[in-house]
Amino acid sequence: MLPHIVIIGGGFGGLSAARALRNADVRVTLIDRRNHHVFQPLLYQVATATLSPGDIAAPIRWILRNIANVKVLMANATRIDVAAKRIELSEGGSLDYDWLIVATGSKHAYFGHTDWEPNAPGLKTLEDAIGIRRRILIAFERAERENDDRRQHALLTFVIVGGGPTGVELAGTLAEIARQTLRDEFRNIDTARARILLVEAGPTILQTFPEKLRNAARASLVRLGIEVREGVAVTAVDSHGVMIGSERVDAGTVLWAAGVAASSVVKTLGVPVDRAGRVVVEPDLSIPGHPEVFVVGDAAAFTHQDGKLLPGVAQTAMQGASHAARNILRRLRGQPTTQFVYRDLGSMAIVGRRAAISDLGWIKLSGVMAWLSWLFLHIFMLVGFRNRVVVLFEWAVAYFTFQRGARLITGDTRTTRF
Amino acid sequence: MLPHIVIIGGGFGGLSAARALRNADVRVTLIDRRNHHVFQPLLYQVATATLSPGDIAAPIRWILRNIANVKVLMANATRIDVAAKRIELSEGGSLDYDWLIVATGSKHAYFGHTDWEPNAPGLKTLEDAIGIRRRILIAFERAERENDDRRQHALLTFVIVGGGPTGVELAGTLAEIARQTLRDEFRNIDTARARILLVEAGPTILQTFPEKLRNAARASLVRLGIEVREGVAVTAVDSHGVMIGSERVDAGTVLWAAGVAASSVVKTLGVPVDRAGRVVVEPDLSIPGHPEVFVVGDAAAFTHQDGKLLPGVAQTAMQGASHAARNILRRLRGQPTTQFVYRDLGSMAIVGRRAAISDLGWIKLSGVMAWLSWLFLHIFMLVGFRNRVVVLFEWAVAYFTFQRGARLITGDTRTTRF
Repeated sequence: MLPHIVIIGGGFGGLSAARALRNADVRVTLIDRRNHHVFQPLLYQVATATLSPGDIAAPIRWILRNIANVKVLMANATRIDVAAKRIELSEGGSLDYDWLIVATGSKHAYFGHTDWEPNAPGLKTLEDAIGIRRRILIAFERAERENDDRRQHALLTFVIVGGGPTGVELAGTLAEIARQTLRDEFRNIDTARARILLVEAGPTILQTFPEKLRNAARASLVRLGIEVREGVAVTAVDSHGVMIGSERVDAGTVLWAAGVAASSVVKTLGVPVDRAGRVVVEPDLSIPGHPEVFVVGDAAAFTHQDGKLLPGVAQTAMQGASHAARNILRRLRGQPTTQFVYRDLGSMAIVGRRAAISDLGWIKLSGVMAWLSWLFLHIFMLVGFRNRVVVLFEWAVAYFTFQRGARLITGDTRTTRF
Repeated sequence: MLPHIVIIGGGFGGLSAARALRNADVRVTLIDRRNHHVFQPLLYQVATATLSPGDIAAPIRWILRNIANVKVLMANATRIDVAAKRIELSEGGSLDYDWLIVATGSKHAYFGHTDWEPNAPGLKTLEDAIGIRRRILIAFERAERENDDRRQHALLTFVIVGGGPTGVELAGTLAEIARQTLRDEFRNIDTARARILLVEAGPTILQTFPEKLRNAARASLVRLGIEVREGVAVTAVDSHGVMIGSERVDAGTVLWAAGVAASSVVKTLGVPVDRAGRVVVEPDLSIPGHPEVFVVGDAAAFTHQDGKLLPGVAQTAMQGASHAARNILRRLRGQPTTQFVYRDLGSMAIVGRRAAISDLGWIKLSGVMAWLSWLFLHIFMLVGFRNRVVVLFEWAVAYFTFQRGARLITGDTRTTRF
């Protein structure tokens, strides 16, 4: 019987691990609680009604259909028993492994304020994105029906907590929707008057970017009429708004882009985790005491390169997962594992039309060039010819007509006030 | 103050009524509990993962954005008080009207067996379609994980109750998904072995079509390996399958395409309704005793043409709604109303690739020609340039690659067994 490698997670990490094991004499099982891979960098475009969920997702078993030694199972891992080398599944039953790659990613974290979650949803899954889309669109619908001036103003106030790339992208797109897309469709409200606040507790938005690029992005945000608040924390969230420092802001919609934590299943590995629940991994990405278990991507805290944590981006997960897979193959050939070395390919953030920043190390861009490189890279990275064509078309429509292709309020509207 | 005409419902009927009132000196308010119009004839393609919800839907206020005298409100009418000329809304508040057009459509009906609904969902809204898509895709995922032969066989059994156009379309597409789309992606099951039953209690499927066309459609279904059962009723539905006459069939997925009833709000009009809850309307589409209230489309029982009920299709709603709108304008000019005359433009049903039937009265088509006319008509009828392009592209991809663009399991997977 060939050695059995189990991969948990069908994100950027899990898929890269499966591909790295493509021609090896091993049996691979990839499990994910979803049937689909989500292209997370474009999730905010689903949340802001530009793209449909189907445009940025693809069935995992379709992506891996041509890799004969990989089997895909839709199943939810609830516990990893490293002693028995066994994964327990929420559907009942379990899965034994010889080697394990954990690529379960992260979820949003509220720094102990879990009660904030219902009023300030985060953005990690397609369901999150559809839920945020529903909230944003319903806010305008309710404002149109509202006769009280103060409540109407609150409904047209949007607070985005967290000034990283996701927060910036959400704020920028929201501004375009309010100022352009919805412009001529309402009779009682002027959507262009919507107030959008971007709140960052740290000293600056986009803090991983060089100062010059940060300033360019901030200027773009301000041009879009967004109030950028830096160095001040959100101290309370309730169903009617937030406290920003000691200032009360009534807001119909609060979105959370402030913090992440590793997915909970990694706690069951029984090895040390950092404050955000990330597994402190060895230089070869395995876990202490269990050289057959590897943790990669957002679920891992890898600090062996320069003492700093690797960034929580697709590249970290993809490079780490391939490296973990290769380390397993080395061990199977009787060779020692090698240390993981992360290669920074740069980072990008987009604000809106013709406004983005791009730090590729050797070149730093802002404005139209950064925006074009952002578009090109994201289309290139998308899985599947079909998704690429549809996303390109939707972007073209959005660019030339200011329209958004997926302005649907769906889901359980009974639980909202509609 | 101009006369106030309220339209309830943003389906084919409601939109046609709003357009017919475009240049009149009236104030129009259209209310719908959704923010979007759904192109219902293609809903089955969302349920079978070919199209995304956004491809066949568009925001109502976007569709009507250029009609200055129309205001769109997202609101749910719970009761119509014809004496006070007032509509009560579930969000609180109410809406007064001078004239009313009710175009609320239909919902599925279980002939008294409301307990069947959780196990045999019907297809009327985007949420229904996403739910059915989830059930279909999860059935294959669970079958892949199942070790017990009998249960695996049950999971790969699909029963569609009702042999009208929707039932035929669902059965045909399901067969293509099982036999082609999913073919190479599973390791433990042969999806091509999936069993698909189409059950019609009446003497024949597609009974509104001429016999020759029915036979052509039935032959296409049989070629796709679908078991067509006619003249036998489903007598029980539970979470493990159905009784077809006295035969027990274990099935993981049961879909309901058998019956419809008018949406419930029309009961509050306080006028006679037929067995399916449809309002028995006057020859001019108004209701008895209230010449200022009109009911059109699936919510109305109009039998003044030849004693037979008009078919529950888009054309009936569109023609009726325009006629009701024109009757209101006639009354405002002091003229008498005129009788509604339905003009049958024909009907179509699609089975699958190059297989459809089309009865246009003067010409009856089956096979490739009917299929092409079906494609052409549906693209032509879709709202919005963007939707037309995306749907055409998705169809081309599906046709040439057998792939489906929206194979996502989303929604509340906690409530399913995943």
